[in-house]
Amino acid sequence: MTEGPRSIGAMRVAVVGATGAVGRTMLQILEERDFELDELVLFASARSEGKRLEFRGEQVTVRAIHERWFEGIDVALASAGSGVAREALPPAAIAGTICIDNSSAFRMDPAVPLVIPEINPEALHGHRNLIANANCTAITALMALGPLHGRFGLRSLVTSSYQSTSGIGQKGVRELVEQLEKLRGQEEQLARPELAALPVGDVFGRTIAFNVLAICERADPEGSGFTTEELKMGNEARKVLRIPDLDVVATAVRVPTLVGHAVSIYARFDAEVTVGEARATLGGAAGVRVVDDLDAGLYPTPLDAAGIDDVLVGRIRHPADDDHGLALFACGDNLRKGAALNAVQIAELVLSGR
Amino acid sequence: MTEGPRSIGAMRVAVVGATGAVGRTMLQILEERDFELDELVLFASARSEGKRLEFRGEQVTVRAIHERWFEGIDVALASAGSGVAREALPPAAIAGTICIDNSSAFRMDPAVPLVIPEINPEALHGHRNLIANANCTAITALMALGPLHGRFGLRSLVTSSYQSTSGIGQKGVRELVEQLEKLRGQEEQLARPELAALPVGDVFGRTIAFNVLAICERADPEGSGFTTEELKMGNEARKVLRIPDLDVVATAVRVPTLVGHAVSIYARFDAEVTVGEARATLGGAAGVRVVDDLDAGLYPTPLDAAGIDDVLVGRIRHPADDDHGLALFACGDNLRKGAALNAVQIAELVLSGR
Repeated sequence: MTEGPRSIGAMRVAVVGATGAVGRTMLQILEERDFELDELVLFASARSEGKRLEFRGEQVTVRAIHERWFEGIDVALASAGSGVAREALPPAAIAGTICIDNSSAFRMDPAVPLVIPEINPEALHGHRNLIANANCTAITALMALGPLHGRFGLRSLVTSSYQSTSGIGQKGVRELVEQLEKLRGQEEQLARPELAALPVGDVFGRTIAFNVLAICERADPEGSGFTTEELKMGNEARKVLRIPDLDVVATAVRVPTLVGHAVSIYARFDAEVTVGEARATLGGAAGVRVVDDLDAGLYPTPLDAAGIDDVLVGRIRHPADDDHGLALFACGDNLRKGAALNAVQIAELVLSGR
Repeated sequence: MTEGPRSIGAMRVAVVGATGAVGRTMLQILEERDFELDELVLFASARSEGKRLEFRGEQVTVRAIHERWFEGIDVALASAGSGVAREALPPAAIAGTICIDNSSAFRMDPAVPLVIPEINPEALHGHRNLIANANCTAITALMALGPLHGRFGLRSLVTSSYQSTSGIGQKGVRELVEQLEKLRGQEEQLARPELAALPVGDVFGRTIAFNVLAICERADPEGSGFTTEELKMGNEARKVLRIPDLDVVATAVRVPTLVGHAVSIYARFDAEVTVGEARATLGGAAGVRVVDDLDAGLYPTPLDAAGIDDVLVGRIRHPADDDHGLALFACGDNLRKGAALNAVQIAELVLSGR
């Protein structure tokens, strides 16, 4: 690993984008995990300057991010969007601050490790203080696929996601709740939507209440027909699992849930795989909980995954005559394992390796 | 076709299961389409006897279904579940009543045509007065896949569905609305569901509000790991499209919407297919509307499909180096084209052929 941070003894951790949905979850997870730190510094945009957030029983005042924000900071957990990341993180990393970024800015940079600690911790070797956190839906899928790949050799992937409104931040949750409020008492009319005034907001651009939107993020500017969110699933799976020629067809869909992303996965492997072998492999995997007994009503749901650390995997099955294929359904907390928890785990791993 | 109904001149139509979500939609569609009939007779379970439903401005009293219910009935549109269908329809069909059944009771019976009028009208030849309506999600997918199969030769299929609560009837809608009401004002807590009292009802057995449930209907009693709803997608696609060896992997998921089913489809074909060819093929297909311009924000949603006849298809794309594969997203009104409309269209087709 490259040069460590400059401070000796005292550990100063920054959360960049502290007031957002992921930032707040980072604080919560640092608390839950008793993360060793001497000072927590919170940064956000100028709009949030002076806000106070509670951490370990004390009020911490949010600062506006500025040019030399990283001075004295050992580790920065960033979730402030790609624009801020591109501007704020490279100088910090060069100055010796370990930056773990939740945005997509650096994920595909060959010089930046893209890490899910349970899946590819070895990617951290030789990092240059800038490390990327994977996409929330990709993490949910890869927590299930990583262990299976290790044993059976992943060859191709078809995914369809069920992504919650918090994936777009607190404003996504707010817009869903507001729309539900507006439609309250009119639910019967929605069978004939021409009779109902459908609310449309700025965040989703369409009615998300009682609807599903087959677009997350935006259309690929290169005109592939996929969305940028869908391309991440393939690009990040190829990088994290180190399968450059992995075939991936992803569909990313926003659904009217609050927290917890789900992903329906059909995977094909080089080796034959039985349902029993898949369950055993996933049952022994760190960070994964197998919830898979349909007769007993056991299968993963986003609400079951919300608020916990494990990714839940179930509905493991394969069609007759498809010995190399597996269908499964994975659910993870998009704010925790899909973002904040994974970032904190990366920080723990980097610090333990020094 | 076999012996027609006995009445000469007067056309008597029955709706069996008239008070349910699909039954009520049948009445609406018979009105909308000016279906030629002289008398409409409504049947339901004894519980609903005496209820009155409006049809063409008049109140029609619901009768309890009884042993000789079909006497004098020319055409019966049934949506009363498999149990009632198995008991009530075969004697009626033998007596000459054309029975169009929305349940799954007879769909896989080789002697019973399974019909989507735009896709396989020829299956009606030689019918024996009993005709099955396909499953709501299967219809939505097959309206898109049928035309593509005709031109490119469908080989395999991976689907993940986004099925609305009305797919389970009015009680499904009611349970979702009740749960949303109970959670009103607590939405923020759902990020940590251990803090919230999650409502659970009899219909879904789990919280459907702000959640997705990867189970529709029940576990395959033969232990395949699939649900009965998932198996329908494969079985019905193979029968409707007459592709006995079609490979299908389906995942059926209930989402917190009211009306409109969506299905994410990845299909592979014998022939190469371009996105342009697929759009052109679907653009010329009856009952399908292509809604597919992501840059302009055009893609299908369940709420756009609710209340209309067409199935909406969009998000048509294929990954690089996958010239035989297509991903697409289809949305249909599960109560209309997925059930009542398709049944009425079958009736129109049968009657026009006499």
